[in-house]
Amino acid sequence: MSGGRLRGYVALGRDLAAGKTTPRAYLEESLDRIARMEPQVGAFVALNADGARQAADASTARWKSGKPRSALDGMPVAIKDIIETADMPTDEGARLWKGRMSGRDSASVFALREAGAVIIGKTTTTEFAAAHPWHTTKNPHDAARTPGGSSSGSAAAVGAGMVPAGLGSQVVGSILRPSSFCGVVGYKPSVGGLNRSGSHDHFSQSCAGVLAASLADNWAVTKAIAERAGGDPGFVGVTGEVDFGRPQTPKRLAVMETGGWKATSDGARKAFDAVRERLGKAGIEVKTRKDDPGLDATEKLIDDAQPLTLAINAWEGRWPLNTYSASHSDKLSPNARERLEQAEAMSQEEYSGLIKRRAAARAAYAKAAGRYDACITLGACGAAPVGLKTTGNTAMNVGASLLGVPALTVPVLADEGLPLGLQLIGRADDDAALFAVAAGVLALLQRTDLIGASN
Amino acid sequence: MSGGRLRGYVALGRDLAAGKTTPRAYLEESLDRIARMEPQVGAFVALNADGARQAADASTARWKSGKPRSALDGMPVAIKDIIETADMPTDEGARLWKGRMSGRDSASVFALREAGAVIIGKTTTTEFAAAHPWHTTKNPHDAARTPGGSSSGSAAAVGAGMVPAGLGSQVVGSILRPSSFCGVVGYKPSVGGLNRSGSHDHFSQSCAGVLAASLADNWAVTKAIAERAGGDPGFVGVTGEVDFGRPQTPKRLAVMETGGWKATSDGARKAFDAVRERLGKAGIEVKTRKDDPGLDATEKLIDDAQPLTLAINAWEGRWPLNTYSASHSDKLSPNARERLEQAEAMSQEEYSGLIKRRAAARAAYAKAAGRYDACITLGACGAAPVGLKTTGNTAMNVGASLLGVPALTVPVLADEGLPLGLQLIGRADDDAALFAVAAGVLALLQRTDLIGASN
Repeated sequence: MSGGRLRGYVALGRDLAAGKTTPRAYLEESLDRIARMEPQVGAFVALNADGARQAADASTARWKSGKPRSALDGMPVAIKDIIETADMPTDEGARLWKGRMSGRDSASVFALREAGAVIIGKTTTTEFAAAHPWHTTKNPHDAARTPGGSSSGSAAAVGAGMVPAGLGSQVVGSILRPSSFCGVVGYKPSVGGLNRSGSHDHFSQSCAGVLAASLADNWAVTKAIAERAGGDPGFVGVTGEVDFGRPQTPKRLAVMETGGWKATSDGARKAFDAVRERLGKAGIEVKTRKDDPGLDATEKLIDDAQPLTLAINAWEGRWPLNTYSASHSDKLSPNARERLEQAEAMSQEEYSGLIKRRAAARAAYAKAAGRYDACITLGACGAAPVGLKTTGNTAMNVGASLLGVPALTVPVLADEGLPLGLQLIGRADDDAALFAVAAGVLALLQRTDLIGASN
Repeated sequence: MSGGRLRGYVALGRDLAAGKTTPRAYLEESLDRIARMEPQVGAFVALNADGARQAADASTARWKSGKPRSALDGMPVAIKDIIETADMPTDEGARLWKGRMSGRDSASVFALREAGAVIIGKTTTTEFAAAHPWHTTKNPHDAARTPGGSSSGSAAAVGAGMVPAGLGSQVVGSILRPSSFCGVVGYKPSVGGLNRSGSHDHFSQSCAGVLAASLADNWAVTKAIAERAGGDPGFVGVTGEVDFGRPQTPKRLAVMETGGWKATSDGARKAFDAVRERLGKAGIEVKTRKDDPGLDATEKLIDDAQPLTLAINAWEGRWPLNTYSASHSDKLSPNARERLEQAEAMSQEEYSGLIKRRAAARAAYAKAAGRYDACITLGACGAAPVGLKTTGNTAMNVGASLLGVPALTVPVLADEGLPLGLQLIGRADDDAALFAVAAGVLALLQRTDLIGASN
C-alpha cells in the first residue's frame, strides 16, 4: 500500500536553492500521493489544498528570490487535530467538538507558518488524544492494522509518504508508538520543549512533538517552532544545533528495558538484539542494568510507569471531562467516562504521592543517564497489532514520558515484516545531543536516507 | 457609594446550619445590592440571576437536610471574565471575543459548583487580563477612580459588597492591586496553586486567585477549588488547614520594600509605618533589609521586577497576540499591538536569560524568607488613582508575582481616606501558613470582621 515515499524535504535544500525543484512541485507530489492513498489510509480529517497551494507558491517565490525564511520554507506539514488552526476545524477526535472552528492558530502552527511551512491539513487523533479511536485510520503498511495513536493520522500520513512531516503530541506513547508502527522518525521532546499553547493538551507529562520522514526534517520542524514560539510558558524550549552532514558515532549507550519489555514480541527482541550486537561490534560500549546499578535502580523505578502515568493523567484529566460529561455525557466514549470515574475517586493527597514518585524516578534517571550518550530500547512492543479498535500497547513509550526526557524512534527494525522503531532516549533538556546520537547510529547502520541531511 | 456590605459567608456557617438564614436569602440580599449599586459601579459583564436562584435553592435544601457540600455551599461567587463558564460568555475583556460561549466550565468554576457555590456572574477584566481597560468599571469607594485591574470587576463587586467572593488572576499585580484599591481581601497563591485550566491565562507567573470579604471566605473558595481541581497540571495545588477561630500572633516578620517602594505615596508609607509600629509594640520582631543581608540581597534581585516581568510576559504573550493580530489587528488595543511588537523583537536566548534571573531571585528569596513567618509591605503604592483609562501602578505587587510565592492583601490601611491594603508575602507552597499569619495580624489589629471565622 505504501509504494515509495516522498523524499525528505530538508534533503532538497540545494535543489530548492538552485531552482531544480520548487515547493509547489513538491506540494503537487504530496497532493498527488494524498489523492491516491488517502481513500485507503484515512489519515486526514481536513485538507486545505487551496491554502496549501497559495502558501507553496509564496514559498516558491521566496526561494526564487534567494530569501527562504528557513530550511523548511515550503515544507508541507500535517497537524494533529487537537492543535488549533485558523483555517480548519479542531475536533480533538471527539464527537463533542465536531467541526469547531477556533479562529486562531496554535503557537506551533503560527510559528511554522512564519518559518514558511505549508499547513496542508488536519490529521486524525483518538478522542481527546487519549485511548478511544472514533476514527478508522489504517496503517499504511497493512490496512488490517492500526497506525497506533493518539497521533494516528500524522503517523499514517508520514508513513504513507503523503507528507514529509506532521505534528503530534505524547503524554503516554502517542508519538513514538505510531511512529514505530508506521515506519517514521518520531520525536517527543523534553517536557516543556515545544510550546503547547493553542493545543488541547494540558497534561503535565504531555509534549508537542514531530513525526517526519527523516531526522533532519524532524529537527527542522522542531527548531522552527522552538525559535519562534519557544517552549511551554516558563520553559526555554528546545535549543542547540545538530550537524547532520557529519554524524559522530556515540561512545556509550545503555539499554533501557523499561517495564514494557515483558510485553515485547520475540521478533521485536530479536531485531533489537541484532542491532545492539552491530553497535557493539562497531566499538560502541553498550551497557545494561546488569552492568550498572544506577541503571538497574532506574529500571525498578519505572517498572510501573504505565499505571503510574495513567493515574497521574486521570487526576489531571478530571477537567475537562467533568464539564463535558455534565452537558454531553452521551457524546463521550465509554473509555472517557471510565477515566472520569477514576478521577472522581481520587484525592489531591493521592495525586501528591504520584507526583513524588515521578520526581524520584526522574532524579534517578538523570543520575544514571548522565554516564551515557543515550539509552536505547524498542520503539514499540512489536509490529502494529491487527485491528482498528485499539491503537496498541504504550508500554515501551511511557518510560520516557514519565521521565520527561527526549525520545526518538527511527524505523530501522522490523517485526512480522512490518516497520519497528529503534528508540533512543536522551537526557532532559539536551535534545540536540539526542538527535546527534541518532544520526551517528543511523550512519553506522548505513541509513543516511533516514538522516536526510541537505544534499 | 459603598454603604454597608454583605457579611462574609463562612461567618454565617452556624446560622445556615441552624436554619436562621438560607443561601436563597443571602443571594437575594446580594442581588438586591447588585440592583442598587451595579448601575454606578459596572462590575459585571454578565449576570445569571435565574441560574443563581436555582443553585441557591438547591443549596438551601442541602443545608436544610444537614448535608451541605462544603463550608461555602450556597456562597455567591463572581467570575473574572477570562475564566470559562458554561452558562455565560467568556469575553476576556477583548473586542475580539465579544459574546463567545465556550460551552464549558473552567476547572475552578466546575469545582466551585461541585462544592455548592452559586456562580452569579462574570466580572470585567482588562483586555486579555493585561493592561488596557475597554471597560469603565468604577471604584466602589469613589466613582472617579479606577478599581484597579486586571481583575477589575471582581474587586469592585466584592468591594461594593455585592458578592462575598470573586475569582481573579494575577501575573503582575492583577489581584492584589485592585483588592487594595477596593478594600477587599485579595490572595494570589504560590505558582501552580490553583488549577488554571479553562482560563485564558497562560503566562508562567500567572495564578488564579481569590478576592473576598474575609480571610475565611477567601480560604474556603481556595480550598474548594484545590481539593477538587488541584493545582495546575503537575502541581499538587494549595494544601493545609487554617484555624481561623484561634489566630496565633506571628513571631518574626520582615519588611519587604520591593522596587515599588520608590513609587509609594507619603500617606501610604505613613499608614504602613503606623501598623508596623503597632506590630512591633505587640512583641513581633520586625526586621528590614538594614538588619538582614539576606533580605537586602533579595531586595536587590527584585528591584527591577517590573521590567523583568514585563519582558518575560512579552515573550510568553507572543502567542496568541500574533494569531489574533494576523486576523483581527483592528480589534486589538494599541497596548496589545505594542506588546506584540516587543515580543517579535525578542529571541529564545533572550528569554532564557530572563528566566535565569527570575530563578536566581526565587532562590535568594527562599533562603531569606525561611527565617520569617512572612514578609510585609504595602498592597499598592497608595489609594486608587483618579481616572478610568489606566488601572494603576503594579509596582508593589510584581515582586511576589516574579517570585512565585503566595501573597495576601488585607484592607486595614487608608490613604486619601480610601482603602489601602497591608500586603503579606509568604513562602512558596506554604500558603496555609500565610493565611494563619494574616489571621494573627488581623486579630492583633482587632479586625476579626476581616478574619470572618464561622460564628
